Amino acid sequence: MKNCIVAQSGGPTSVINASAMGVFKANEELKYYDNVYAGIHGIEGILNETMVNLSEMDAEVIDRLMYTPSSGLGSCRYKLKSYEENKSEYIKLFEIFKKYEIDTFFYVGGNDSMDTVHKLSNYAKEHNLSTKFFGVPKTIDNDLPIMDHTPGFGSAAKFIATIALENKLDCSVYSAKNVFIIETMGRDTGWLAASSCVATLNGKPVVDFIYLPEVAFDSEKCLKDIAKKLETQDSVVVVVSEGIRTADGTFLGEIGGHGLDKFGHAQLGGVCNYLKNLIKDNGVCKKVRAIELSTMQRCAMHIASQTDIEESFNCGFEALKYSVTGESGYMIGMQRVSNAPYKSEAFALHTSKVANNIKYFPKEWINAEGNNVTKEAYEYTLPLIQGEPKVQYENGLPKYAFILK
Amino acid sequence: MKNCIVAQSGGPTSVINASAMGVFKANEELKYYDNVYAGIHGIEGILNETMVNLSEMDAEVIDRLMYTPSSGLGSCRYKLKSYEENKSEYIKLFEIFKKYEIDTFFYVGGNDSMDTVHKLSNYAKEHNLSTKFFGVPKTIDNDLPIMDHTPGFGSAAKFIATIALENKLDCSVYSAKNVFIIETMGRDTGWLAASSCVATLNGKPVVDFIYLPEVAFDSEKCLKDIAKKLETQDSVVVVVSEGIRTADGTFLGEIGGHGLDKFGHAQLGGVCNYLKNLIKDNGVCKKVRAIELSTMQRCAMHIASQTDIEESFNCGFEALKYSVTGESGYMIGMQRVSNAPYKSEAFALHTSKVANNIKYFPKEWINAEGNNVTKEAYEYTLPLIQGEPKVQYENGLPKYAFILK
Repeated sequence: MKNCIVAQSGGPTSVINASAMGVFKANEELKYYDNVYAGIHGIEGILNETMVNLSEMDAEVIDRLMYTPSSGLGSCRYKLKSYEENKSEYIKLFEIFKKYEIDTFFYVGGNDSMDTVHKLSNYAKEHNLSTKFFGVPKTIDNDLPIMDHTPGFGSAAKFIATIALENKLDCSVYSAKNVFIIETMGRDTGWLAASSCVATLNGKPVVDFIYLPEVAFDSEKCLKDIAKKLETQDSVVVVVSEGIRTADGTFLGEIGGHGLDKFGHAQLGGVCNYLKNLIKDNGVCKKVRAIELSTMQRCAMHIASQTDIEESFNCGFEALKYSVTGESGYMIGMQRVSNAPYKSEAFALHTSKVANNIKYFPKEWINAEGNNVTKEAYEYTLPLIQGEPKVQYENGLPKYAFILK
Repeated sequence: MKNCIVAQSGGPTSVINASAMGVFKANEELKYYDNVYAGIHGIEGILNETMVNLSEMDAEVIDRLMYTPSSGLGSCRYKLKSYEENKSEYIKLFEIFKKYEIDTFFYVGGNDSMDTVHKLSNYAKEHNLSTKFFGVPKTIDNDLPIMDHTPGFGSAAKFIATIALENKLDCSVYSAKNVFIIETMGRDTGWLAASSCVATLNGKPVVDFIYLPEVAFDSEKCLKDIAKKLETQDSVVVVVSEGIRTADGTFLGEIGGHGLDKFGHAQLGGVCNYLKNLIKDNGVCKKVRAIELSTMQRCAMHIASQTDIEESFNCGFEALKYSVTGESGYMIGMQRVSNAPYKSEAFALHTSKVANNIKYFPKEWINAEGNNVTKEAYEYTLPLIQGEPKVQYENGLPKYAFILK
């Protein structure tokens, strides 16, 4: 008996289930493993033996998971310590792998999860254990190095751009001067905020200013920019990343008093309200609205990118295919083969190159003023949001699968 | 020469343009008026002679407006005073009507706008002026009396329910206890918050508690409800209306310190953060996320209800058809002919019945505990969110028309 297990980790995306389904469907085709298990709530769930056998699951539910947002198998934010720090956990995990005859473990996640894959793969090699470990990329933040982009990013970008577009129309209806601020996620990187550049009306960008964590935030310059723009147009749209900080490194979101998460990352958010008050208090504009897209941007499957869904599926599919080689400690990445027409390809890379590494938004794609992005950013993002999702509707709402209790 | 003019007023909706296009398309069919003008930024724009001739506009743009959210003709929040208070305005307006040979004025709006129609119609009759005035209903709040529901409500409801559904999936991924709060608009009425009851997963409602302005908010009871629910499930979803208030009439949104708008309505919002802090500060749950849907819920055409779009179009269409009778001071309403299969019909009613009147969410549709709604609310709302919008996409995003400068 030779089985495999797939699990999801970290913050969910709209398309993370497509990757898990890619793993499952590749095995349906190759029949390399006897069973495909799913670990519920990531590695934390596997440690508690909370798993289901996908091979025994209703085919209709499996197909629906493909178009269901958020980690359908549950997730965890569980930082695996080193073997030296927590031997018993490693031993327990490998006992469970043995019990369930797990030959390969697929972990769908971001750079923290790739660190887990890397550690477990090393441990297995050092202890002559046959279980292999494979990573499948996932993060709306688009901050994994080496690869062109990450599964989940295109769908979040499409939601952000759609919201920017629709709300630009909303805030244009009155003849009064107003500022509209949208806050995106993205932690230390500006990919998500920058992606709003694809929203246009009559060929003109909808977003007037984009503030990224890669540029030190200068509140005086920002207020001047907005005031100047308000001289020539009634409505000004600003997109701001949750991770922006001042030149001395202070997160603007922290000024509102947020703490740290389990990984020691600052818990961001609230930047849009900070900026709203800044604009009002300095008399730049009386009418300011701020919206924080929060978790909506990572689960809006109803406006996901079909390109993203298919690429995410493909990453899972290729991961299983590649696992047949017997390698361990690798993951799948995506490279852009051409931009027009757009074509991407999956490739394998070692998780050590990705684990705990961050890919920042390129400085060359930020305009000279530091308050917007260049044509290159537009051309980079546009192909990733193409195609409408093949979501099924029932009773007027998307029909999603829900297998967690 | 006999012309008509259509204008939009008040807060936009996703489908308000469909109503304006209904007016225009009815005239294309009936050819009753020589030109259909549009007043830009409502009555305020007409007073400045800011108008366009829709009959001369590119047919492709007209067709695209049908599926463009937000008041494509601009809007205003302009409270027309009585004739006694502002004679010059009335005189100026009727001079403009005379100049453009306006036989009928169609105003798409909520109860404040219907008050304007009512006043102008009375003024014309009293002064033997031939211009006629007709109202077309519009409000996501669904608070217009006499009629079954209002154009705009179904689409907002569909967005709210979709967001509740997707974010329920998002907040179910971790095994940690958490509370997710969604704040809807709706002012003094709970229709929008209540509409979230249509979101279900595996046949079970997604939203655990719905707090409406029609029930005095009791924070102790609310905290107890949530704490108890957290005993049996990890994720609790709460939907709260911006207009909830305590037994002594204090708006929870006001505690955050908001002012009054031009009509003397309290500027609400911020209730979700108030509730979030309440839950955290009282130790009910550590992990609480709050999102304010803000203007997104009134312009999310990408997930609008096709039923709502068609009904809104029909209201405009029927308004023009009815105007041929020569009546003035009337408006169109919708009545539900049957629920299964769902069928609605337009009817005419006098604006005096609607102007400055409010239809509250029915007390009989609120559960005994005052923290959720009944099956009747579900059955009422469900038909209104049916059908996916026939939005065209271009470059991965909805293709909207934008005719304002």
